[in-house]
Amino acid sequence: MTVTHTGLIGLGTMGAALALNIAEKGFPIAVWNRTAAVTRAFHAGAGELAARITPTDTLEALVQAITPPRAIILMVPAGQAVDDQMAALAPLLGPDDLVIDAGNANFRDTNRRDGADLPFRFMGIGVSGGEEGARHGPAIMAGGPDAAWAQMKPLLQAIAARAEDGTPCADHMGPSGAGHFVKAVHNGIEYADMQMISEVYGVMRDGMALPAADIAPVFDRWNAGPLQSYLIEISAQVAAAADPIGGGPILDMIVDAAGQKGTGRWTAVEAQHLAAPVPVIEAAVMARNVSARRDERAAGQARFGAAKAKITLPLDDLEQAMIAGKILCYAQGFAMMTAAAKEFGWALDMPAIARVWRAGCIIRSSMLNDMAQALAEDPARNLILAPFFAGLLDKGLPALRRVVANGALQALPLPALSAGLAWFDLMRQARGTANMIQGQRDFFGAHGFDRLDGKDAHHGPWGSPA
Amino acid sequence: MTVTHTGLIGLGTMGAALALNIAEKGFPIAVWNRTAAVTRAFHAGAGELAARITPTDTLEALVQAITPPRAIILMVPAGQAVDDQMAALAPLLGPDDLVIDAGNANFRDTNRRDGADLPFRFMGIGVSGGEEGARHGPAIMAGGPDAAWAQMKPLLQAIAARAEDGTPCADHMGPSGAGHFVKAVHNGIEYADMQMISEVYGVMRDGMALPAADIAPVFDRWNAGPLQSYLIEISAQVAAAADPIGGGPILDMIVDAAGQKGTGRWTAVEAQHLAAPVPVIEAAVMARNVSARRDERAAGQARFGAAKAKITLPLDDLEQAMIAGKILCYAQGFAMMTAAAKEFGWALDMPAIARVWRAGCIIRSSMLNDMAQALAEDPARNLILAPFFAGLLDKGLPALRRVVANGALQALPLPALSAGLAWFDLMRQARGTANMIQGQRDFFGAHGFDRLDGKDAHHGPWGSPA
Repeated sequence: MTVTHTGLIGLGTMGAALALNIAEKGFPIAVWNRTAAVTRAFHAGAGELAARITPTDTLEALVQAITPPRAIILMVPAGQAVDDQMAALAPLLGPDDLVIDAGNANFRDTNRRDGADLPFRFMGIGVSGGEEGARHGPAIMAGGPDAAWAQMKPLLQAIAARAEDGTPCADHMGPSGAGHFVKAVHNGIEYADMQMISEVYGVMRDGMALPAADIAPVFDRWNAGPLQSYLIEISAQVAAAADPIGGGPILDMIVDAAGQKGTGRWTAVEAQHLAAPVPVIEAAVMARNVSARRDERAAGQARFGAAKAKITLPLDDLEQAMIAGKILCYAQGFAMMTAAAKEFGWALDMPAIARVWRAGCIIRSSMLNDMAQALAEDPARNLILAPFFAGLLDKGLPALRRVVANGALQALPLPALSAGLAWFDLMRQARGTANMIQGQRDFFGAHGFDRLDGKDAHHGPWGSPA
Repeated sequence: MTVTHTGLIGLGTMGAALALNIAEKGFPIAVWNRTAAVTRAFHAGAGELAARITPTDTLEALVQAITPPRAIILMVPAGQAVDDQMAALAPLLGPDDLVIDAGNANFRDTNRRDGADLPFRFMGIGVSGGEEGARHGPAIMAGGPDAAWAQMKPLLQAIAARAEDGTPCADHMGPSGAGHFVKAVHNGIEYADMQMISEVYGVMRDGMALPAADIAPVFDRWNAGPLQSYLIEISAQVAAAADPIGGGPILDMIVDAAGQKGTGRWTAVEAQHLAAPVPVIEAAVMARNVSARRDERAAGQARFGAAKAKITLPLDDLEQAMIAGKILCYAQGFAMMTAAAKEFGWALDMPAIARVWRAGCIIRSSMLNDMAQALAEDPARNLILAPFFAGLLDKGLPALRRVVANGALQALPLPALSAGLAWFDLMRQARGTANMIQGQRDFFGAHGFDRLDGKDAHHGPWGSPA
């Protein structure tokens, strides 16, 4: 591999890390940034990897530095910058060249770009794992033509994280925007995982009066069990860390207003379009939005008083509630992807998605191993019905019920955990209560209903609507 | 009023009812349907109102039958049919003519149509109340230029429902798509009201083992108190009605899979775009989606068993829980409209919206009187902080907590009620738990956070991300 077939545009945090990762794995790479000084500084700081990196000062020079078949990775901000960069490349590239958008694109933009009459080939890949992942092994969800995947597979699997069994966490999700779609669902689940952690943190802090120093070891302990995951692991570290300024726990000094870049929202919106409910993710997005309204929350507390919660449940209940909540959340996410596959005509491979998420990305966890296995048994079956997870739910649900009930009684907000539970209780209820809704709809709008006995009579005896 | 200034296109159920209503209120009207036989049958069946109705066989004839300034109401299916009809009218109308889309348009379509270079004036009005409302008095939410509203106000207020104090339930919401936007929020709230009713119905049916005949009088009783509303009233009638075929309660024969036309989904999607949470509406849409998955629900029950609930709470708790849930839901809806007004540059008049909803529409209720008053005191204040409603919440919240906790413990799904409660508990918590989320985000993505002490240090002491 001494010939450069790969280029990369955009040497921000993520792009620089990805370029170093690529070079380190033995792939020569040409790079370009719109500010030439950035390119030179990057090359100068690349150490022994600099030999495999060709810095270029112009787009033309970048293209010329790459030997066909060319593959050029874009790592520029999602949105207009991607369109601009593709337009600038158009006159320089031909039908054998491949452009890869590795940014955080909305999959609908990727579909649109892919559907346009491009002079080059195109694919979109979702890259998860932050800077550290990009540098040493991200999870990669690729979308695009089979031939594009075949061309890039050696490189993408070389730079990707590896699961414990050695499988690279980079795979082909499907055509066009499929990779960015799966990445969006990943991010939605990330929101949900983080929200559920913050909810049990709140139970410990506000309901059990545990100081941060006592909360950290709880997360550490959970990280040795079924909840083992990167997010639980770092929650322990966040809770344990001291404030370099004041000396107390840094966690107690951090403002409780969560930022967001909108990918959780995308997931919630797409789930609505697909009529595939993801209530735990919706609750997580909602909670972030409410967290940002600090003044309103303060006014609410001023009027209604602070909650005086006292939770006497064992910590094991919190762990079991988290296990159940996590399963419910992922079951919703995989069901949403099943609906998307049907809607968009994609052959999304559910076990492959679970396998890709096992390492490198923010939601990596040991439970994804079990999910990959359960989905391989029957990819169409809802995860809650897979024997392994149904068994975990048998054990976890009673605890989840106790935690949610105590939160409701004692004014500790548990939006994600309670949304997961309510969804489960709907999903295990053969005879629901929507017959009342159908009765109302027929009453006021003559919308009609079906009968349990199948008889061909579809309206109630309410005469003309009142 | 012997000169015809008004036309109406589309004599389906809603269009026909609206045309009769207009004629009955003394406004001569010309009508056209693309099937001439429909037009003739409509006219022949109009009885004494036929004298004020001019049936026409062509679009040209329709336009000629109307004396300028012309106003032509479209009552055709939302979507492409509206665009087609507008295109067909374009060569026939001039800049003084006004076209009014009275269908169930997505407000983004109304904005788009309004922004196009039209040869005529345009406005979009949301009409609520079903066929009966259209015939005898709907609620009307108008969006469009001031001059268009001024022109149509006499007619629209004449045909609209009237609140108890005599005020017509038709008002100008703002420019462009503002009317259809407010109508969408109305529909989202309608979903939520219906869902909350179906949830307490489920508590009575499945948790208290009450037969439908015993549930009907409960709704009747509630209809005499703070919950007085059209939806509670018809719920009593739906529960009381006998099945004409089998003789048992019709409610017990109706299939529990709720249909939907998508307006609840629109509201949920727009709320996401506005970052203005409407979790009760989201839960209602979710529950309808899950209700449609009957086979999955049956499989869930087969694996996890039917819930064996036994709720011993007094019925008063259910009423109080509903009162609290309803207030929380409407507070979210009004907050969403406040966010929309800011986002779209509309001067939405919150008390006026509550007043319009008091009669004619599906969510009409006595509580909207009190909401109009509370919003008039301070339109920017969240409804939960208005003294009247804060007082109702003081009384209702303990019951809502008991109901939600019992549902969680006993596997009775209460997605909307529990989502409302969790939102409230977030909104009254001055110190939330999103500090954990901010800590995590800084840990894995160096996203930074603010400190409670305001010091200019925005990262945790975790060194480079792991």
